Amino acid sequence: MNTSKPSRTRPRIIITQGDPAGVGPEVIVGAWSNPRLHERADLLVAGRPEVLRSAVRLLGGNLEVEPISEPEQAVSAPDRIPCLVCGSDNVLDLSPGAVDARGGQAAYDALVKAAELALAKRVDAITTAPLSKMALWKAGHHYPGHTELLGELCGVDEVAMMLYLPPGDAVRGAAGLGVVHVTLHMALRDVFKHLTADEIIAKCRLADSVMRRLKGDAPRLAACALNPHAGEEGLFGDEEKELIRPAVELARKEGLNIEGPLPTDTLMVRAADGEFDGVVAMYHDQGHIALKLLGMHRAVNVTLGLPIIRTSVAHGTASDRAWQGVADHGGMIAALTVAADLAAGEK
Amino acid sequence: MNTSKPSRTRPRIIITQGDPAGVGPEVIVGAWSNPRLHERADLLVAGRPEVLRSAVRLLGGNLEVEPISEPEQAVSAPDRIPCLVCGSDNVLDLSPGAVDARGGQAAYDALVKAAELALAKRVDAITTAPLSKMALWKAGHHYPGHTELLGELCGVDEVAMMLYLPPGDAVRGAAGLGVVHVTLHMALRDVFKHLTADEIIAKCRLADSVMRRLKGDAPRLAACALNPHAGEEGLFGDEEKELIRPAVELARKEGLNIEGPLPTDTLMVRAADGEFDGVVAMYHDQGHIALKLLGMHRAVNVTLGLPIIRTSVAHGTASDRAWQGVADHGGMIAALTVAADLAAGEK
Repeated sequence: MNTSKPSRTRPRIIITQGDPAGVGPEVIVGAWSNPRLHERADLLVAGRPEVLRSAVRLLGGNLEVEPISEPEQAVSAPDRIPCLVCGSDNVLDLSPGAVDARGGQAAYDALVKAAELALAKRVDAITTAPLSKMALWKAGHHYPGHTELLGELCGVDEVAMMLYLPPGDAVRGAAGLGVVHVTLHMALRDVFKHLTADEIIAKCRLADSVMRRLKGDAPRLAACALNPHAGEEGLFGDEEKELIRPAVELARKEGLNIEGPLPTDTLMVRAADGEFDGVVAMYHDQGHIALKLLGMHRAVNVTLGLPIIRTSVAHGTASDRAWQGVADHGGMIAALTVAADLAAGEK
Repeated sequence: MNTSKPSRTRPRIIITQGDPAGVGPEVIVGAWSNPRLHERADLLVAGRPEVLRSAVRLLGGNLEVEPISEPEQAVSAPDRIPCLVCGSDNVLDLSPGAVDARGGQAAYDALVKAAELALAKRVDAITTAPLSKMALWKAGHHYPGHTELLGELCGVDEVAMMLYLPPGDAVRGAAGLGVVHVTLHMALRDVFKHLTADEIIAKCRLADSVMRRLKGDAPRLAACALNPHAGEEGLFGDEEKELIRPAVELARKEGLNIEGPLPTDTLMVRAADGEFDGVVAMYHDQGHIALKLLGMHRAVNVTLGLPIIRTSVAHGTASDRAWQGVADHGGMIAALTVAADLAAGEK
């Protein structure tokens, strides 16, 4: 066991193992050997070492998994995974892809541990591997997802998710492209009662705040319309006039550089072209259809409004492909890179 | 005036001028000099020759605009636009980008003329340049758009729009990618009352029918979910279970090769990768966000369920950029090419 005092000049990032039956363990192991990550941060995993060792055997290579009991023991390297042991060992015989209460409980336990350490400033950021919401519910934890659970663990009402793509071929703005959702994990039918001018402006502020940190300058933002053709001047709905435009005007008065509401289909093309750094989307699929098309395997979730830094891969447990050694770990590398960027900005 | 008898071994396509204050005239003139179009079809424009001549002056070059009174007089060439004179000359002093009843009336008049000629089989297909729905309404014609107006002119209740991209870098299926919308030009709030299993299956059949013609074989189809994560097994809405899955199962029993409902964000990535030829989307922005990102300037609308062939550019009047000579005419070339493909398939 490595007992040297960890350097605090660079961030320490805890990765939650997610649902052991999903692709979490293998994308963690797959991303691990990227040497640039270990130059930027000390990484550790919260979960079961036995599960990580199974993923190492699945993918081949000679990564060592080192059980630790305190995050301060973690000094990561491309050939060594420090694993903060947490959760029950009843997950060791889960079937690949199973939606099982034990997997949900394991994901829950790792997240609770990670949040506790982040709130105590014993780690600088959390990056989460995917959980199955159904398994989480089966385990008795009735949250729509990680984001809402983290909000509760941190005692924060107003949380939001930003889906982020680093700059690249498809995203031509130098700061990448972030999409913040006003509503997220709910039936489309329920969006209307959750969409208020207050919620919209709160999300505009969050988008400004996080993209300002990633850009190092005031970001250019745009708000999506809710209706086709931005309501076609009232012919196809009035939420643009009643809710979104007033919220955007208020945000502009506060000094935000924001336009909208704009028809979402063409707005996303302009944003990909680099005209905007951040977009405020009204519901889940508006942002997700766009960013997954622009780079599904590099997309990162950033939770906004928490007192701690949390990023995540944008994909799910992929239960149909889990434990086959075929999962793309590019999203995990990107999620860890963004966590390191945000944590470095705080130091 | 060219009075030679037009060849009927190749299709005759009528292009409506759209709103004269929008980008319609300039994208028609811009597309016109593409010689491949004239190898495939005889083209003519329904509208005002003076407006086309203004667009020729705007873009430069020495295209001749030739007024005609019957479509049979049209033999097009890259240097000559036959223009079937229709509509009032009160549009000649419209300001660029103006939303004006005269522009709406002009678009209406050209469309009515084109539909009449197509129904009489004096032309084989219609390709429309954009109109302004507000201008159309100001002129007293209360239709959400071209598609619904054409449905009424043709005496057809069940019309739908397919948004189509030809094969290319972003769309890797050899037949291109078509998205048929179950609901279209309405407030998002109104989608729920229009979404029925009957409507969904009708659109699955239309998608199968048109993509079969463009592919020359049975297309592989998928239906979008309505809710995020396809409803996450009922946590985020029940339309998947209550409406979409039963409709898809019925379509499969009829022999369609269709899957779904699938979460729309990842479905669109799979479709772009060539896994599906056609997608049935539940509402406007689902399909439009995806296809505009994949190729906004090449996207084509195809109206389904009419007794006539009609394609259209997928963009609007672009009133902020009209008559500046900067509009991309790639969509008009694509719309005319698809019209020629569909018309050739009928001959």
